[in-house]
Amino acid sequence: MAVIGLTVNYSSPMASYTPPVRDMIFTLDTIAGIGSIIEAPEFDHVDADMIEGALDEAARFFSEVFAPTNEIGDEEGATLVDGQVITPEAFKPVWNKLVDAGWTAVTGSPEYGGHGFPKTFGIAISEMMTSANLAFSLNPMLTGSGITLLTRHGSDELRDLYLSKLISSEWTGTMVLTEPEAGSDVGALRTRADRNDDGTYRINGTKIFITWGDHDLTDNVIHMVLARTPDAPVGTKGISLFLVPKYLLDADGTPGERNTVEIVSLEHKLGIHASPTCVLSFEDSTGYLIGEENQGMRYMFTMMNQARLEVGLEGLSVAERAYQHASAYAKERTQGRMMGGSKPAPIIEHPDVRRMLMTMKAYTEAMRGLVYDAVAADDRMHCAATQEERDAARDRLALLTPITKSWCTDHGVDVASIGVQVFGGMGFIEDSGAPQFYRDARITPIYEGTNGIQALDLVMRKLPMHGGDVINGYLDEIDSLAAKLADTDDLNDIGRALSSAVATVREATRFLLGSSPSDAMAGATPYQEMLGTLAGGYYLARQAAAAVERAIDVPWLAAKVGTARFYAATVLPLINGMAGAVTSGSDTTFAVSEEYIGAVR
Amino acid sequence: MAVIGLTVNYSSPMASYTPPVRDMIFTLDTIAGIGSIIEAPEFDHVDADMIEGALDEAARFFSEVFAPTNEIGDEEGATLVDGQVITPEAFKPVWNKLVDAGWTAVTGSPEYGGHGFPKTFGIAISEMMTSANLAFSLNPMLTGSGITLLTRHGSDELRDLYLSKLISSEWTGTMVLTEPEAGSDVGALRTRADRNDDGTYRINGTKIFITWGDHDLTDNVIHMVLARTPDAPVGTKGISLFLVPKYLLDADGTPGERNTVEIVSLEHKLGIHASPTCVLSFEDSTGYLIGEENQGMRYMFTMMNQARLEVGLEGLSVAERAYQHASAYAKERTQGRMMGGSKPAPIIEHPDVRRMLMTMKAYTEAMRGLVYDAVAADDRMHCAATQEERDAARDRLALLTPITKSWCTDHGVDVASIGVQVFGGMGFIEDSGAPQFYRDARITPIYEGTNGIQALDLVMRKLPMHGGDVINGYLDEIDSLAAKLADTDDLNDIGRALSSAVATVREATRFLLGSSPSDAMAGATPYQEMLGTLAGGYYLARQAAAAVERAIDVPWLAAKVGTARFYAATVLPLINGMAGAVTSGSDTTFAVSEEYIGAVR
Repeated sequence: MAVIGLTVNYSSPMASYTPPVRDMIFTLDTIAGIGSIIEAPEFDHVDADMIEGALDEAARFFSEVFAPTNEIGDEEGATLVDGQVITPEAFKPVWNKLVDAGWTAVTGSPEYGGHGFPKTFGIAISEMMTSANLAFSLNPMLTGSGITLLTRHGSDELRDLYLSKLISSEWTGTMVLTEPEAGSDVGALRTRADRNDDGTYRINGTKIFITWGDHDLTDNVIHMVLARTPDAPVGTKGISLFLVPKYLLDADGTPGERNTVEIVSLEHKLGIHASPTCVLSFEDSTGYLIGEENQGMRYMFTMMNQARLEVGLEGLSVAERAYQHASAYAKERTQGRMMGGSKPAPIIEHPDVRRMLMTMKAYTEAMRGLVYDAVAADDRMHCAATQEERDAARDRLALLTPITKSWCTDHGVDVASIGVQVFGGMGFIEDSGAPQFYRDARITPIYEGTNGIQALDLVMRKLPMHGGDVINGYLDEIDSLAAKLADTDDLNDIGRALSSAVATVREATRFLLGSSPSDAMAGATPYQEMLGTLAGGYYLARQAAAAVERAIDVPWLAAKVGTARFYAATVLPLINGMAGAVTSGSDTTFAVSEEYIGAVR
Repeated sequence: MAVIGLTVNYSSPMASYTPPVRDMIFTLDTIAGIGSIIEAPEFDHVDADMIEGALDEAARFFSEVFAPTNEIGDEEGATLVDGQVITPEAFKPVWNKLVDAGWTAVTGSPEYGGHGFPKTFGIAISEMMTSANLAFSLNPMLTGSGITLLTRHGSDELRDLYLSKLISSEWTGTMVLTEPEAGSDVGALRTRADRNDDGTYRINGTKIFITWGDHDLTDNVIHMVLARTPDAPVGTKGISLFLVPKYLLDADGTPGERNTVEIVSLEHKLGIHASPTCVLSFEDSTGYLIGEENQGMRYMFTMMNQARLEVGLEGLSVAERAYQHASAYAKERTQGRMMGGSKPAPIIEHPDVRRMLMTMKAYTEAMRGLVYDAVAADDRMHCAATQEERDAARDRLALLTPITKSWCTDHGVDVASIGVQVFGGMGFIEDSGAPQFYRDARITPIYEGTNGIQALDLVMRKLPMHGGDVINGYLDEIDSLAAKLADTDDLNDIGRALSSAVATVREATRFLLGSSPSDAMAGATPYQEMLGTLAGGYYLARQAAAAVERAIDVPWLAAKVGTARFYAATVLPLINGMAGAVTSGSDTTFAVSEEYIGAVR
């Protein structure tokens, strides 16, 4: 850890993580409206004080116990020894404390031992866990996806055998989808599932990119595997979902005989070194059908929103930690003098460094608004009082999912990269900690559907929902806030910037809704960036309005206004510039023939 | 290298590099105007055929001999063994071939054994070397800076002893500036130089971030060291420059006794692993004054333009290789089907992937225009026929230097990141090669003056040159091309986009020239990005015009037009969006007090 010749002390606050509890609560309150969510009958056991208390307790746990594993995990990485994945040494005791404290079970169903809190609360806990250690957090995150699949589609028998163990994190779960020739195109997968006489299946095939596909933290690992039965239709309509445990269960439900799932190798990756990314080989492995045959893709889609929001959250979480890390350095590191100053100034006082930190801060808080709003919609689509509200929440979630996944991950990478820049030369040195965020963040725009796939989902499926009513309703909502703010004394600049931005997005939306599929696909990614940028400005503006309403003279609230103002002045106008790319059309994208793309001597 | 379970073969064209000789020649011709440069008397021995022939020969060498060392160098890295840096095993034979072939001596002075070619030719050779292996290329690159310093400011004795050995690359050179407390603020350095009775100096101090500060490729390493004499004025005015060899020379000029320069450690870095970044300790080391005492910073400035252009070139070079790499993959990798298609399509046919590749291509070729134009100005300020032309070239170079350094490196990182994205899940796996470009590129916005420092240079020093005449002249030049193109049948869309962009930049320029220093500093980086984006569009538009003039029906030339069109439609409009950040002012940047930046519980 020591950097020879440098006076900076890396055991300083820089290496640490302070969960931003105050901003989390403010966002839960002003954006997610958690107060109205916990009014639903299923959350009778939850109240606001309980939530604040739990967040404080979680903050202590994740900053003091979980966060210190981040750099160690990166350095040590996961290894494969004799067909068994070994996690970094520091992980096992921390994992046990995590499970004991119950932080992975907060949203689990009380019927199976969970605490039954709303997801809107769970997301704040997940944010802390992910900021504290992204690579480590992926294990509970994927287990959560397995829990959702099993809860919604598993037979009573499978649920009784597996669910409480997964919710308690005594066992963990994996998502086993990708094959060498079936990445973005899941429908091309070839792993085969043959029926046995006893109702089980024999699974055969090779799967890649299996996150936490094996490890030594728990007694069992439960794989959720996509495969085809011999007579299945081609493409996505012929995919079934199977539960394949690492260890088959004995009659009493405890892990017994080893199933034939082989861990072939681990990938050598750019980042998240502590997260074992496995190549798994299934060789006549015993699997149990979840739900019905050929419905696997449909089941996957039911948990996809959740998983995509969680990856969006990863972007936010890395951004938050990189931002804290760079800010601590910028306050400590002196270099140069300010105009008129006589002694070296901390670099946070230099305008260009301040600009970088404000950019990191504004994007991070904007992402938090977007993620928390999307998750609140996920709760509301189940718990809102009326069918109309539940339907509206479902549509909102559908719209916000691709934006949340893509915008937060693209800018998570950007924020981590700005963090490297704040550190100057030290930013390129691994010991400074800045490179890890830059490396770790880079997976997030890729997995759980690349951001290009998200853009296609947004433009081809989500914009046309209800004839454009969902997107237009969202834009109306933003417009009406903009109009309100434009009439205020304190926030009229923000209102005007928002108003101009939403007009541009409206026009781009109209263009895409009316254009050919190929033109729409050519403009999809720039549009996604445009809409995300608007959404970010919207959530910051809402928070600024709430801050003014509460008490603008409270310095922390004034800082919320200052952040929204910075974003409105420097980021929202970028939207005007994006319109060109959105409307440029397929002819422009394909203006150069393939022969002249790439190496041309 | 093998990735289990994947059918993609990594010994395929993807791992290779094809120097884009045709685009280099086209750019040298249409942008740099190399034809008029070699008319100068000092280039009497150079003609166009010779240049084309040499580029072809160099292309063979760098693709076949140099490029294959890139991945090996990254994996093996440089190591420190018993106080001596050991380079990757594959490097020594390749280095010897490089030196024998004379590719490092192309621009060197014939008086000392160089070939005396213009820098405008040298830059194309450097581009090949840097694309082929960035980490390795830094050794000759820094040697080149030492050669410039010695040529311009060294005594006859020092030049006679060292210059021909450096030009031939029998020895290499380093730049020794940074100290723990003196990074961007060079003036804070504390390394001390005491006079000896024999006219030499005793150097004492610790220096960090010394690129190629030691290695095992040559018999000697010549350090160019900044230090202070005991009675020197404070700050940058008290810095002197010393030549400090690793081995002192015997009376016959051959390396003899070891000087007391200790290699304390190597940094563990994010990228350029094969480039040893050293902490050097000077302990009563013998140094020779270059030029006069206290003139060290002035001397450094005389070579700073060159070094900054070379780092800008690094951005271009990594971008070119990442672009070729991603394009090869996108042509080979099939996934999904096109609308109406029945078999899996190569991903290059998917609109969003095509958009990514076109973005990589357009930025890369735009960067090439910018770098080559700047280097041509560097030649012209020495070799142009009239004093007026030489002065204009000097001003142009001064203006273009910060833009070239910053814009090409920022977008070099972006292009490398897009490359990762094109590879999808494979992009995160080190074996695919994509992560190396993403890691290597990240140093370039940092060193040789961070891009924030470049922005301050641009806005505070370069814009005000001659009362704004230099920047306005450059904008006029762009405007006049825009007007010309707007009147054509083929390129009017490009002309209009350029015209609108230049109007926005003009307004932003006026704002900055008329604003307070603190407002100008707050807007400096966004302005730099804006001007770079405009410059990129300008060079592509000039090439499109030249292509149309030559023969639009030649497919390769039509591709140049298509590339310019893509950039004009999707990238140039972004400039409109940047105006907000440029003019947002210092109050916005400092709207949040320091206390609320970073970790706040």
